Amino acid sequence: MRDDTVSTRLRTMLAQPDPAGVSSLLDQLHAVEAAAACESLADSEIWRVLDLVPIERQAAIFSLLPSPTQVEMISAAEPDRVSVLLEAMPHDDRVDVLKQLEPAVVDGLLPLVSQTDRQDIRNLLQYPEDSAGALMTTDYVALRVELTVAGAIEFLRQKARASETIYYNYVVDGQQYLVGIVSLRDLILAESDMLIGDLMNRKVIAVQADQDQEQVARELARFGFLAIPVVDDVGRLVGIVTHDDVMDVVVEEATEDALRMGSVGAMPQGYLSTPFATVWRKRASWLACLFAAELLTFSALAHYQDAIAAVVVLSLFVPLCISTGGNSGAQAATLVTRALALGEISPADWRRIVRHEVAMGLALGITLGTIGFVRASLTPLSVLGDVPRWTLAFVIGQAVAVICLWGTLIGAMLPLVFRRLGVDPAFASSPFVATFVDVTGVVIYFTIATSYLL
Amino acid sequence: MRDDTVSTRLRTMLAQPDPAGVSSLLDQLHAVEAAAACESLADSEIWRVLDLVPIERQAAIFSLLPSPTQVEMISAAEPDRVSVLLEAMPHDDRVDVLKQLEPAVVDGLLPLVSQTDRQDIRNLLQYPEDSAGALMTTDYVALRVELTVAGAIEFLRQKARASETIYYNYVVDGQQYLVGIVSLRDLILAESDMLIGDLMNRKVIAVQADQDQEQVARELARFGFLAIPVVDDVGRLVGIVTHDDVMDVVVEEATEDALRMGSVGAMPQGYLSTPFATVWRKRASWLACLFAAELLTFSALAHYQDAIAAVVVLSLFVPLCISTGGNSGAQAATLVTRALALGEISPADWRRIVRHEVAMGLALGITLGTIGFVRASLTPLSVLGDVPRWTLAFVIGQAVAVICLWGTLIGAMLPLVFRRLGVDPAFASSPFVATFVDVTGVVIYFTIATSYLL
Repeated sequence: MRDDTVSTRLRTMLAQPDPAGVSSLLDQLHAVEAAAACESLADSEIWRVLDLVPIERQAAIFSLLPSPTQVEMISAAEPDRVSVLLEAMPHDDRVDVLKQLEPAVVDGLLPLVSQTDRQDIRNLLQYPEDSAGALMTTDYVALRVELTVAGAIEFLRQKARASETIYYNYVVDGQQYLVGIVSLRDLILAESDMLIGDLMNRKVIAVQADQDQEQVARELARFGFLAIPVVDDVGRLVGIVTHDDVMDVVVEEATEDALRMGSVGAMPQGYLSTPFATVWRKRASWLACLFAAELLTFSALAHYQDAIAAVVVLSLFVPLCISTGGNSGAQAATLVTRALALGEISPADWRRIVRHEVAMGLALGITLGTIGFVRASLTPLSVLGDVPRWTLAFVIGQAVAVICLWGTLIGAMLPLVFRRLGVDPAFASSPFVATFVDVTGVVIYFTIATSYLL
Repeated sequence: MRDDTVSTRLRTMLAQPDPAGVSSLLDQLHAVEAAAACESLADSEIWRVLDLVPIERQAAIFSLLPSPTQVEMISAAEPDRVSVLLEAMPHDDRVDVLKQLEPAVVDGLLPLVSQTDRQDIRNLLQYPEDSAGALMTTDYVALRVELTVAGAIEFLRQKARASETIYYNYVVDGQQYLVGIVSLRDLILAESDMLIGDLMNRKVIAVQADQDQEQVARELARFGFLAIPVVDDVGRLVGIVTHDDVMDVVVEEATEDALRMGSVGAMPQGYLSTPFATVWRKRASWLACLFAAELLTFSALAHYQDAIAAVVVLSLFVPLCISTGGNSGAQAATLVTRALALGEISPADWRRIVRHEVAMGLALGITLGTIGFVRASLTPLSVLGDVPRWTLAFVIGQAVAVICLWGTLIGAMLPLVFRRLGVDPAFASSPFVATFVDVTGVVIYFTIATSYLL
């Protein structure tokens, strides 16, 4: 999101140059707004802006810039300048930036970073993408069981500036095993000489570092937590995931699903800001695949060309019949895909889903088949030729009903099959299902039609 | 989400009866887990479970039950029992419950609730659905500018149990005007005799009570806040919206959009738990509308029946040509709908979007048209009859390209038109766009075909 008025003011002040004006303008902005205002500046201008504010604020603003801007700015700057910035950045954000850089650039930067930070970065870099480990930060406060409440508050006071949150504090034993949680609210309410070990809530809900980020988001959202602790495979605390990062994941995953369900594929930089050639490549490859699959409708129809030549009216109902399958399939696929994404169902429920969708497909098929029957029975004589009116109506009604049932069933099953195969069920998109059902719909339609009319 | 093992244990303990067992089992559960375990119990069993725990915990668990269960439980219970529960519930959650009840039931309950709570409920009930006012809670702590830090911490200590958060605290003047924000982190770090008026951050980002909840979610997510203050039209603080409620909104809106984009319509209770008849009604009405629109493909084709009778091969390419429009349209509609939902574009950008999509539609059309040309040029002689091969190939290539451009443009424009008309752009779903483009695609295809081949 850009903020053009502020950007223009910033650029004018940089050109004069009026460094005091820039500082005082930035003082009035939230870091999010400052980053938005910087977005339309040149890389060198952003560096000049950053040089005018304290390092903590530089790090906050830089963390919020779009990832391509971050990469360009780092590549253009002195490694010493960058290493100072990296040391001040939130631990999760700096790793996200480093992941975008060429390995050679990272290898050049790391030796300049303090040893503690370097170790922390190496540690966070190892987690697979989209895992809890990749999402978490190590800027958390871990309290020891033997601290008193007063001691813990004093400890938090010292750690407050360098931690993402001091509101949820996790308690660990001498071996870093996660044993409890104490919120700042608990600390404020407790007697100052009470021990953390006695005050803490021992029932901590945690996630594993290798869990998928969608599951992490689901857990945190379910409980309404500010943060959720991340543990390794033996239960030692390795990081925390905070609510704001989860919010980003939820929006990102919903976008990814929505775009996949519309056969687009993810757009890393958003509509209109992604380069034309990238968008074309993504969209064209999807459409070409669907088009290639849809070519099979021609082959299927060619198989029935004698029937079409003999009974031309049959061809007039082809789009109607096959689109019924596409629409009912898209509907079922959307419902099942979303229910999978929300964790309401899993592929293990497939029997229940099949039963539900067979019943639903029958009910929907009878509904649409009846409309199709009525409409076909009203076919004008000029179009009908010598085809018996009621036979035609019966063929259309039956074909619509069967194709609707078939589409519903395929639409419901494809996302489950995809999930089982390890493919994102959102790829079972409306166009994908429609194309799949179009081809088979032609065969169903002509099988029914030729058995009555030829 | 249900938890069947715990439910079974609860039910067994209730049957014995073993009240001590129930209490100690509930002590080990988070309120979210306790509510999940209660979901599969009968209403009377849930009341018996609630009676075994303190009132604050009753209120927490009850708030997390599904809305239909809450309504049934209230209808079956003594009003006195319910009023005690309502007084202990979070202010936003109890209003959500009351909104689901018959007005007569609410009128019977309100006189039993304490006057302060009654006034608060009446006040919150007045906000329109999906507004910031309907989403907000009044369980917040407002600090006065003239307090000292030590005084504020003492005040928070007293208010902590009855407030949704004490981490973000809003500062008001004597007339309740919002003038600043102080976080608990700021308070912990500050000198104890400092005045709140000097410590507070005066730049508070707030939302208006009548703003749409999607905008509220976007603001809170953008800044990564724990909560955002809600003000009336003159700037007086009336409530706060917390991060967990926004998370629910984000998930809810993404689900609503996803289902609309798949032509399903919102399912209030989730897949498999919504009653069959409700699901059938929603799905059948969508499919019937699309089917009725798709009937026009028959009328359009009937118009060209002489051309089809004369050149049968033309009818074999109909599904291929029209599906191209549906797929490219679905793609463009998805991209534009999602970009609108994320606030990346607005209907005012329509010129830029048209330019982008015309260029993209041409690029995609040429890609697919080329494939169509090649495939049509390979039509076997037996199917081709006396139709000139290269003319047919040229007709198909050109029709595919034009329909692809047309579909792309319609798909991109429909969501913008819908938004402008005040309709959710997500209704410009893949099946909707496909159906619209199918009908017009038939006309485009035969206009091109008949001009070359007849």
